[in-house]
Amino acid sequence: MPAHALYERHRPLLDDALQALSRRGHWSPFPEAPSPKVYGETAQAQGHAAVQALFGKDYPLRQPGERARVATEQSPYGVALDIRYPECDAQALVDAAQAAEPAWQALGPQGRTGVLLEALTRIHQRSFEIAHAVMLTTGQGAMMAFQAGGPHAQDRALEAIAVAWKAMADVPAEAVWEKPQGKHAPAVLHKRFEIVGRGVALVIGCATFPTWNTYPGLFAALATGNPVIVKPHPNAVLPAALTVSVLRDVLTEQGLDPNLVTLAVSDKPELTQALATHAAVASIDFTGGNAFGQWLQSNASQARLYAEMAGVNLVVIESTDAYAGMLRNLALSLSLYSGQMCTTTQNLLIPAGGIETDQGHKSFEQVGADLAAAIDQLLTDPKVAFTVLGAIGSAQTVERVEQAATVGRAVRASQKLTHPEYPQAEVRTPALRALDVADAAIYERECFGPVSYLVAVPSAQAARELAERSVRAHGAMTLGLYSTDAAFVDAVAASALRSRVALSINLTQGVMVNQSAGFSDFHATGGNPAANASYTTLAFVADRFVVVQRRW
Amino acid sequence: MPAHALYERHRPLLDDALQALSRRGHWSPFPEAPSPKVYGETAQAQGHAAVQALFGKDYPLRQPGERARVATEQSPYGVALDIRYPECDAQALVDAAQAAEPAWQALGPQGRTGVLLEALTRIHQRSFEIAHAVMLTTGQGAMMAFQAGGPHAQDRALEAIAVAWKAMADVPAEAVWEKPQGKHAPAVLHKRFEIVGRGVALVIGCATFPTWNTYPGLFAALATGNPVIVKPHPNAVLPAALTVSVLRDVLTEQGLDPNLVTLAVSDKPELTQALATHAAVASIDFTGGNAFGQWLQSNASQARLYAEMAGVNLVVIESTDAYAGMLRNLALSLSLYSGQMCTTTQNLLIPAGGIETDQGHKSFEQVGADLAAAIDQLLTDPKVAFTVLGAIGSAQTVERVEQAATVGRAVRASQKLTHPEYPQAEVRTPALRALDVADAAIYERECFGPVSYLVAVPSAQAARELAERSVRAHGAMTLGLYSTDAAFVDAVAASALRSRVALSINLTQGVMVNQSAGFSDFHATGGNPAANASYTTLAFVADRFVVVQRRW
Repeated sequence: MPAHALYERHRPLLDDALQALSRRGHWSPFPEAPSPKVYGETAQAQGHAAVQALFGKDYPLRQPGERARVATEQSPYGVALDIRYPECDAQALVDAAQAAEPAWQALGPQGRTGVLLEALTRIHQRSFEIAHAVMLTTGQGAMMAFQAGGPHAQDRALEAIAVAWKAMADVPAEAVWEKPQGKHAPAVLHKRFEIVGRGVALVIGCATFPTWNTYPGLFAALATGNPVIVKPHPNAVLPAALTVSVLRDVLTEQGLDPNLVTLAVSDKPELTQALATHAAVASIDFTGGNAFGQWLQSNASQARLYAEMAGVNLVVIESTDAYAGMLRNLALSLSLYSGQMCTTTQNLLIPAGGIETDQGHKSFEQVGADLAAAIDQLLTDPKVAFTVLGAIGSAQTVERVEQAATVGRAVRASQKLTHPEYPQAEVRTPALRALDVADAAIYERECFGPVSYLVAVPSAQAARELAERSVRAHGAMTLGLYSTDAAFVDAVAASALRSRVALSINLTQGVMVNQSAGFSDFHATGGNPAANASYTTLAFVADRFVVVQRRW
Repeated sequence: MPAHALYERHRPLLDDALQALSRRGHWSPFPEAPSPKVYGETAQAQGHAAVQALFGKDYPLRQPGERARVATEQSPYGVALDIRYPECDAQALVDAAQAAEPAWQALGPQGRTGVLLEALTRIHQRSFEIAHAVMLTTGQGAMMAFQAGGPHAQDRALEAIAVAWKAMADVPAEAVWEKPQGKHAPAVLHKRFEIVGRGVALVIGCATFPTWNTYPGLFAALATGNPVIVKPHPNAVLPAALTVSVLRDVLTEQGLDPNLVTLAVSDKPELTQALATHAAVASIDFTGGNAFGQWLQSNASQARLYAEMAGVNLVVIESTDAYAGMLRNLALSLSLYSGQMCTTTQNLLIPAGGIETDQGHKSFEQVGADLAAAIDQLLTDPKVAFTVLGAIGSAQTVERVEQAATVGRAVRASQKLTHPEYPQAEVRTPALRALDVADAAIYERECFGPVSYLVAVPSAQAARELAERSVRAHGAMTLGLYSTDAAFVDAVAASALRSRVALSINLTQGVMVNQSAGFSDFHATGGNPAANASYTTLAFVADRFVVVQRRW
């Protein structure tokens, strides 16, 4: 089926996505429940089997410039993966990308969109396989790995394709310019406008959400006409490899050069650095830490950088009329994937004098004790606990949890649990530490993982000011607020506007501050130090291409 | 009249602009003919008088942090302007901009658009005044100063406002997110999305087109919610000052802080550097040379840079079926404002063996001689000559013209003319020099001003390849082509796509390669070294704001 026929086939999906974006209500074409009724009775078993069949083997991927096979992944669940990926020469990958570019460019927005929607549909069909790869490489619990690594990541991919479509469709393909010249015949020029990608795109993935944080840049860059080199985190290669394989399969079927999308695997920073600073690399999508993000900013100045880096997320607790709901919501929020989400709250700012609630006044200490109890309660059932917590992804995070036990006052100690299925997994429950407002040196630094600080602030007003200052200085993906005082809510909303951070107010039910829904929530504003771009605004896609006109 | 009423008043203008952009045909609401019938019998005289009334005086502008009055302008026409502008402290301007920001932000897209369209309408009413200021400060001829400095610049401003509107209108203001929960009640979140500017914008103008190249960044930044500090070139302050004054007047009438838009005048680079590297400056629009452009890229990394810098524009001449028309078109193109346009052709690539034309075969030498004669012909009538050529804007350009007389072979010598009205003006006709393809060291460097090189290339194919290489390496705003060979036209069009440059094919009538029409032509692609942004794509506006959401 030619690319333009693929476009026609998937056009209803594109149209639905565009309509969803114009409303930003709840919508997804990809069911989030890993249910046999939806995905088929055997889908899960088949997905797991497909992943296991790769263990200890050369991953089936042939790319130019292969100079070695490398197995870089250490599963947080202690599963021996030993999948050997090609390690390719940077220049060879760039050359191959550039060779594949003109045909992709010539396909035009419709053809490209058709091919990408076909690939996305096939990625969706392999959700269990990709989800299992996400789980094993990141340490996420099975449910999160399925939802965030599968359907929710696919939502973000579709969103990127749709927003890119919108930006490209804004430019008419042709025009006739006819200028009246008084008594003379009008001056007439014919004009054609073509969308041309900026050049080779490098998409650098992270260790925790190797599809959710990779798909937006990957699909936005492809849709707008650019070849892409995907550089996954060395510890979470497989989800990216499976994705790249599907894309390459579809490209090959279409008679296109599969090297339009390649995988750059290595645990040596030199490869990433060589790619990032290559003169032909025109854009870089990066999710990861500040150190490498700042290195990219300073050294890869030839490329446009879309970066999501570290931040310090906060919740301001002023008062609540749903104390139990608030505690349950916060407990789950802090426990999900052991706090290894870029959107998880680190600092809970609580007036030292306590807060008013529907259950009466609660002192600072009481709120801490009650939150600790809510976490205990949530994790009582081991099955729930292991599903919610997952495993700790890196030794550095384990270290941070252990160091955190030495600062401030203990409110809730992190426990080490033994996973019944994966005894080698590092499973840790959330640590809560109480700090004073003077302990800024501790709480103003990101402590990624299951560590949160309850910071005793002089007043709610002080909490608001501290939050605004912190977001401006250190960045944040999320800001939460609990308050029954409409004027205070307005004041914090104004703070959030000034510091350019997304605000969640009085979440006490099934949505957590760290959750962001495709087609509705913007992920990061791009306006504070935590990130310079947002999933998915027009700004995320519009500068990935230029318009080249000709007139005659 | 409140800002939202201004929006309603000017909404038909906005709607027309949006429709024009969707078609990209010929359209402008601002008549380009400086005709008494259109603008009124006394408009021109009043405009000139208004400018002359400012000579030798303090310019009526009061801004925070004023520490001196400075007169920095030297008119290329030799007119003593001696207008004294406030030189203000950089920190004071930034502080004032930040103080003005929240109210401007709170006004929202409609209110801001209303205020800006009102200001633009008043700028239009003062076209003769601004045009005269452009003429006296830049050296443009009166007609170009009126058209490019007045209505055409206003077109670009309206275009920027309209594209910004489109980008902002893409985000709904509110949404209800309702997620079904099986048997349970659906999860419901209310969401609000607000457009928030990135912060203080710095708009750095150039010496040659102080309104045309300043308005896009100025109005795009304002429309999207940012305060703007306008830093005009020290030699072309008045057109920017008049514009800033109109904006400040309208803001004041609206009860808004006029310091939302300020003027930073200085002939000391330190002021510009202090502003450009200020932590609060979030975006910089820059039109000017490579040296300062690269300095900004390296030193102002806290800001998003929209830069138009130097380039080497080319025309490839393969063949023509309208030899006389081609020569007339090229003659006018090279003569307009003595080649001091960023879009003027520098290198004419012509096969050493000559070209086929409707007047028979023409040797390389003959084409040069005929082009020289066409320029002579165009400039025979002194009135036409002085109108077309204007005056040379800077001593460096005069120097370049003189140095050019020493390279290659003379085809047409530049003449110095004496302006009857402005005897001190440096008026120079275009120089044509013939070079060999081996003289790359000469022709691959921008030689801004009335100097063009006829480069003898081995073949048309070699010309195409040289042009593509040159655009990639040195950048270009424009590429021209004359050819009757459809296959060759296609090959050059493919080259233009690869090197990301706008292509004009077989222009022989009233449109020159260096002319770019608002609402139809994109000015620069943003995809080659001459510029990283384009008037006016979505990319030019979409990253000037972020979306801050709140949900509850």
